[in-house]
Amino acid sequence: MFLNGASVGFDTVNNKAVFIDQTLLPNEYKEVSTDDYNEVFDAIKLLKVRGAPAIGVFTAISLAVLMNKSKANTYEALFAELKKYCADLVLCRPTAINLKWATEEILRIAENSNAENFKEKLTQKALDIIEDDVSVCRKIGEYGAELLKNCDSILTHCNAGRLATVKYGTALSPVYVAKENGHNIKVFADETRPLLQGARLTASELCEADVDTTVICDNMASFVMKNGLVDAVLVGCDRVALNGDAANKIGTSGVAILAKHYGIPFYVCMPFSSFDKNIKSGDDIVIEMRDGDEIGDMWYEKTMIPQNAKTLNPAFDVTDHSLITAFITEKGVFAPDEIKNYI
Amino acid sequence: MFLNGASVGFDTVNNKAVFIDQTLLPNEYKEVSTDDYNEVFDAIKLLKVRGAPAIGVFTAISLAVLMNKSKANTYEALFAELKKYCADLVLCRPTAINLKWATEEILRIAENSNAENFKEKLTQKALDIIEDDVSVCRKIGEYGAELLKNCDSILTHCNAGRLATVKYGTALSPVYVAKENGHNIKVFADETRPLLQGARLTASELCEADVDTTVICDNMASFVMKNGLVDAVLVGCDRVALNGDAANKIGTSGVAILAKHYGIPFYVCMPFSSFDKNIKSGDDIVIEMRDGDEIGDMWYEKTMIPQNAKTLNPAFDVTDHSLITAFITEKGVFAPDEIKNYI
Repeated sequence: MFLNGASVGFDTVNNKAVFIDQTLLPNEYKEVSTDDYNEVFDAIKLLKVRGAPAIGVFTAISLAVLMNKSKANTYEALFAELKKYCADLVLCRPTAINLKWATEEILRIAENSNAENFKEKLTQKALDIIEDDVSVCRKIGEYGAELLKNCDSILTHCNAGRLATVKYGTALSPVYVAKENGHNIKVFADETRPLLQGARLTASELCEADVDTTVICDNMASFVMKNGLVDAVLVGCDRVALNGDAANKIGTSGVAILAKHYGIPFYVCMPFSSFDKNIKSGDDIVIEMRDGDEIGDMWYEKTMIPQNAKTLNPAFDVTDHSLITAFITEKGVFAPDEIKNYI
Repeated sequence: MFLNGASVGFDTVNNKAVFIDQTLLPNEYKEVSTDDYNEVFDAIKLLKVRGAPAIGVFTAISLAVLMNKSKANTYEALFAELKKYCADLVLCRPTAINLKWATEEILRIAENSNAENFKEKLTQKALDIIEDDVSVCRKIGEYGAELLKNCDSILTHCNAGRLATVKYGTALSPVYVAKENGHNIKVFADETRPLLQGARLTASELCEADVDTTVICDNMASFVMKNGLVDAVLVGCDRVALNGDAANKIGTSGVAILAKHYGIPFYVCMPFSSFDKNIKSGDDIVIEMRDGDEIGDMWYEKTMIPQNAKTLNPAFDVTDHSLITAFITEKGVFAPDEIKNYI
């Protein structure tokens, strides 16, 4: 096992991008090592690697790995090859900014390198991105743990944990840091249809860390909130606009509306790499529409939806900034209208 | 096929209660005829027959069938046997009032009968209850169709259609009646986890009736509402309190909160048999808690939840009367604070 608790990694000895195939969890833990472009592409497209920060880090690692084995021997040829990979990969998942961010970071380094140091500089950048992700998530955890010091339990949606980053996670990092400090916070995990990231991934990593975890169907969030079982909601995000509107896994905006109705604080845990200073509001965020088979056929032996019925499968939604109590970031805790000051 | 479009029926020639095994839909249509107590009990307990009105009607039919084959030959023995069946059955599903209501209706008839006319009177009562259900649902459809005359599309949760009643349904009856009148209303059907009554049942019966139907995951309701795709929400109910609080399938209260947030009218379609004049508010409604395996294991080949995670599986929730725009009933359309005047 190369990863040792991380969700993605860079095996520099063998020049491989390493990831956990998250589609197999919770029934099978499988690490995959690859230097193959198609396998990288499929890993992102098919959600074997998912979670905005993890996608960003994995993209950076993969680009370094792919370029390390490039046979191109001029700067121009190296750069052209890299640019092609970036242009293809960035189309895999349109909503999370981290994929685009990672390609831009790597391209920026490539622009400032030459044929001799091209590969070395990309490798170093990927390693830096891994290290940054860990330290950013750790800081989110520390700020969040302080904020939650009087909380008994939180509710989270989808997976914004260790499996969505390199380590710690964003929304779950405060729970892990609190636990290190001797404060056990219970977690309600929305199962998060259709891909069940909450049931399969959030519950898996929390149980592995011995956190008291209860999985509920998405439509039970109102019930647990009404019954006083939830002190705060913590979620991750895929892209945040200048005004504080936040795109995250489909269903997040609904949870935010419920939290507001019941007077429960709603926190978005956001590394600044998820902040998109180029868009004014959530209206400008492209929402990825995925195949409807994920709703009626995936996971099941027989279909659960009759043939003539249509489906609609948006993978994300946008939570209006007015529904967000605060952003928990690596630079501190900010109200939605404050974040643009901290770029 | 005995049922011919109905969801439950009384085969008086062969003295059988007949039902569609709804757990097999949408992949298999299977009618079951029974006069066996255990099969009746399991049909209700295991949700082969479900939907508050259908459970009530099926209970009345089953009690008549069971008593018709009774070997008891005194009034006291007949009544004692009936009372035992009622006491057992009523425990199957605690939330919907219709199960209790049906046993009480049948017991009331039994109290006013004698050894000679006992069986005949119960059979006649069951047939009357079937007929009443059809005419009540038809009236709900007519009032609802009038209310929706300017609506292009509705959203519904769970199944309150033909399959939840004898015919027409409650929440879907306005859609069927509107269609008869030449007005095609599109329907968004929440899939309704964990038992997928929306995906499996609502979509099946609507598609069979050639209604434009789109299945979404429960957590997508906020997305479709925000995008202006829903003009009204229509749901059924399992029990309504004096103050207008309404118990219905888990997730209904969340949909109501979303509808309020987005300014979309939220209608509860209620036959007066679902009104419980003995309880002041929803706080007095017992919520059925079901086995957590329905969340992580049912339908799947392999479990979707790691072993150490807990689950919580409330089958219903209560929607506060303040979230309900109006009740659509067989007696007209009423605000929550008006219904108690129409008992």
